[in-house]
Amino acid sequence: MSDCVFCRIIAGELPSSVVHEDERTIAFMDINPASHGHALVIPKTHSRDLLEVGPDDLAACTSAAQMVATRAVERLGADGVNLLNCCGVDAWQTVFHFHIHVVPRYRDDPERDRLKLPWIPEAGDPESVAAAAAALRG
Amino acid sequence: MSDCVFCRIIAGELPSSVVHEDERTIAFMDINPASHGHALVIPKTHSRDLLEVGPDDLAACTSAAQMVATRAVERLGADGVNLLNCCGVDAWQTVFHFHIHVVPRYRDDPERDRLKLPWIPEAGDPESVAAAAAALRG
Repeated sequence: MSDCVFCRIIAGELPSSVVHEDERTIAFMDINPASHGHALVIPKTHSRDLLEVGPDDLAACTSAAQMVATRAVERLGADGVNLLNCCGVDAWQTVFHFHIHVVPRYRDDPERDRLKLPWIPEAGDPESVAAAAAALRG
Repeated sequence: MSDCVFCRIIAGELPSSVVHEDERTIAFMDINPASHGHALVIPKTHSRDLLEVGPDDLAACTSAAQMVATRAVERLGADGVNLLNCCGVDAWQTVFHFHIHVVPRYRDDPERDRLKLPWIPEAGDPESVAAAAAALRG
């Protein structure tokens, strides 16, 4: 996967600020941070996205993301954290190697936190919600 | 936890459209959907947020979220999916029982998909990124 930017980071062919590494994952700083401390967690084994990543790598990445999130609160003074996965170009995925964004959040601090709510919660149409539920059931 | 809305859903005291259930988790429709098929995955055992949820419940919820995401693509025709966790009121958490949003995405379809990019990616200040990295390292 020499054309995958994240595989090249794992191989040490591209520079990155690694903040965590274990058997299955690495975490490193996002170079286009949405907030102070914005990091990415990826599996060392290439998989394209959430639909493709294996169960052990998915669990390992999520566990590492939880750990980085905890550090962001304890060491950076974050007031909260968002985890975000983008699966597919229509869900804002830009690098096609599975990754979880760990985005520390800071109250009333636009210098360190540039995030905007991605949707305004409002009640859905009950028939539409019921139709989606029927399709999603096992 | 009778004052927790999600615990009351688990207990059957409040209605919900459940789309998945296993030993550790349930998934049900968000009543304020950001998109068609927007679901939430929660652990049956109460935990407040990402900082508190146990490793087995975290892995089980993530696995269930992956499965619901796959169904959204296969059965609803979603073009992509976002997973989102909000940890803390400053990260948009409104119900304090750990949950993962599974948000199917639809290309050029504002009727079914109301999401806006939560930040505009742009390069971070290198010194600030390095300082955050130093704090987050193990």
